[in-house]
Amino acid sequence: MPRYTHLTDKLPASVPFVGPEAQERARGELFTARLGANENVFGPSPHAIKAMADALTDIWKYGDPESHDLRQALAKHHEIPPDNIVVGEGIDALLGYLVRLIIGPGDHVVTSAGAYPTFNYHVTGFGGKLVTTPYKNDHEDPDALIAMAHKTDAKIIYLANPDNPMGTWHNAVTLAKMIAQIPKGCLLVLDEAYLELAPDNCAPALDTNDKNVIRMRTFSKAYGMAGARVGYAIAQAELIDAFSKVRNHFGMCRVSQLGALAALNDTNYLSQVIENISISKEKIALIGARNGLRALPSAANFVALDCGKDGDHAKAVLDGLIARGVFVRMPFVAPQNRCIRVSAGTRSDLDALAAALPKAIIDANSA
Amino acid sequence: MPRYTHLTDKLPASVPFVGPEAQERARGELFTARLGANENVFGPSPHAIKAMADALTDIWKYGDPESHDLRQALAKHHEIPPDNIVVGEGIDALLGYLVRLIIGPGDHVVTSAGAYPTFNYHVTGFGGKLVTTPYKNDHEDPDALIAMAHKTDAKIIYLANPDNPMGTWHNAVTLAKMIAQIPKGCLLVLDEAYLELAPDNCAPALDTNDKNVIRMRTFSKAYGMAGARVGYAIAQAELIDAFSKVRNHFGMCRVSQLGALAALNDTNYLSQVIENISISKEKIALIGARNGLRALPSAANFVALDCGKDGDHAKAVLDGLIARGVFVRMPFVAPQNRCIRVSAGTRSDLDALAAALPKAIIDANSA
Repeated sequence: MPRYTHLTDKLPASVPFVGPEAQERARGELFTARLGANENVFGPSPHAIKAMADALTDIWKYGDPESHDLRQALAKHHEIPPDNIVVGEGIDALLGYLVRLIIGPGDHVVTSAGAYPTFNYHVTGFGGKLVTTPYKNDHEDPDALIAMAHKTDAKIIYLANPDNPMGTWHNAVTLAKMIAQIPKGCLLVLDEAYLELAPDNCAPALDTNDKNVIRMRTFSKAYGMAGARVGYAIAQAELIDAFSKVRNHFGMCRVSQLGALAALNDTNYLSQVIENISISKEKIALIGARNGLRALPSAANFVALDCGKDGDHAKAVLDGLIARGVFVRMPFVAPQNRCIRVSAGTRSDLDALAAALPKAIIDANSA
Repeated sequence: MPRYTHLTDKLPASVPFVGPEAQERARGELFTARLGANENVFGPSPHAIKAMADALTDIWKYGDPESHDLRQALAKHHEIPPDNIVVGEGIDALLGYLVRLIIGPGDHVVTSAGAYPTFNYHVTGFGGKLVTTPYKNDHEDPDALIAMAHKTDAKIIYLANPDNPMGTWHNAVTLAKMIAQIPKGCLLVLDEAYLELAPDNCAPALDTNDKNVIRMRTFSKAYGMAGARVGYAIAQAELIDAFSKVRNHFGMCRVSQLGALAALNDTNYLSQVIENISISKEKIALIGARNGLRALPSAANFVALDCGKDGDHAKAVLDGLIARGVFVRMPFVAPQNRCIRVSAGTRSDLDALAAALPKAIIDANSA
């Protein structure tokens, strides 16, 4: 037998999320509406699709390991130097590289109880010790996270803004205050996967000299390219450089690099998608309201619908939706797990939701 | 400042290979012929291109984290259970995951001096200690690798068959003998990236019960999809399972998964590409011969041309080619670095090589 490391020998073979395809295989039937993974059903810009189609003839070439052109475009877009940007195979991969750089066995990492499981997977995978603070009124709690980081001498704090799975958010003033209080030797990972969809006042200004913060962005959400696997991080140059100690230099799909570049440049399409998602979220709230479920305000591309009872009840509602071909997910931790989480969908997706939800609730109430 | 781990703090921000795009940016001019990265200029099957083009409309969906359909197809193709296959973001990523599972600070890993730098990058990146044995007559030396593994209590032996950068190979009998001698608690990583291009008797039969061997395969070489980032590993089920402790579950590009599936099914096209590569390698040997450079026999998609002197001379020839728009690479370690390594190319690529090589040699001889 291979001799695993002490650390990996003890790790569970866990999966942060079961994919919808696995659920479809188990059901023996495809989902009618795919509203569980916070994907963007409206898809990428037609220019991005065309750029990717055109790039297929060159797919025999490895992608540029420096993602030079995409980084240049991102630098221009954000008005920062390209040396402050690293591109990777989605935020998931970048989180993995970052955790590997900083976290070893026993190191403390602070996150909210019920926040992003894939981040937790990486922390556990490198032997880190997760400490959590509860949500406060369905928001992540910056003060509690900072206090816990002080208390545990944490090396990383993770905060998503807007938050997943609740969709709630903090404004730039609150975050600036939080950043000012980060303990020495602690890094705030600010996961802004949904930022393009959030109100304008949601993000503190980018400060590429700030050694205490790294920002995570992606083409998976507003840009509609989850399947392409393109994320990027923004931080001070030394930390960005450090990614090259551990990253998979030739890991980027060449087609995805070119697609992301084209998507970034189509600002009109992005605006249209943001509007489509906004309308869809209103419809989800309306469908919820018709069924007695309160929609939490959301700055992301999904809506948490409060099912009004406990986690078992919400899970029963979720199961009822899944049984009727509507793929949704839900928060993991109480009391947030009184909600189901529904991603923005097309009209036909939401028709399926509207048809299935009343029946799912009846089932749940009689369970 | 972030508090890096003791290990990563000391790592260099290294790049296993500088990409051709970076060289083009430095030159201020594109290469005429891209023959340095062992890419497959003939590209993938038209069916794979079509499958990827069709998949673009669904690129808003994450890829299946289990790569179920591709694994099923690979299982059928190899006549083994799908539980013995893990799909990842190219062999590079799979090597990284594997090293992470097994290698910690101070653990020994045996490889040939001058073998695959990206594997070495991963070993160093997890604190492993590389020990090397020299090539023997331009072949990796199985007996020496085994002896060194015994001597150093190594946890991993790495061997590429066919070999990169030399293109030489061992037959199945030699490898079966090597496998029988693997020390207890040591894993042989058999990198078979170029196997589809090699003679039939090159690979020992797949044995999914063998706990001492893991085989690495890819869609980057014979299948012509380097930019898509699809590799896979074959091993006993427990080791395959262990990848799910550390891998990036949602790391696969959805389009690439579907492209690989279509490429696998187009066996006629694969045969044609193998023939094209074979013809191209003969032409490279002929171009070499016309210029007094001996071609080493190659079972891969490239040819090592012996420039007849030392590494400095070969480097001068290489520089002369690059200056004339022909991208090639060369081995890193003496005496293999008396060669330059030229990937199979199109007719026009080889015309560019034929035109540039005599001048590059004249330059090198007068240097």
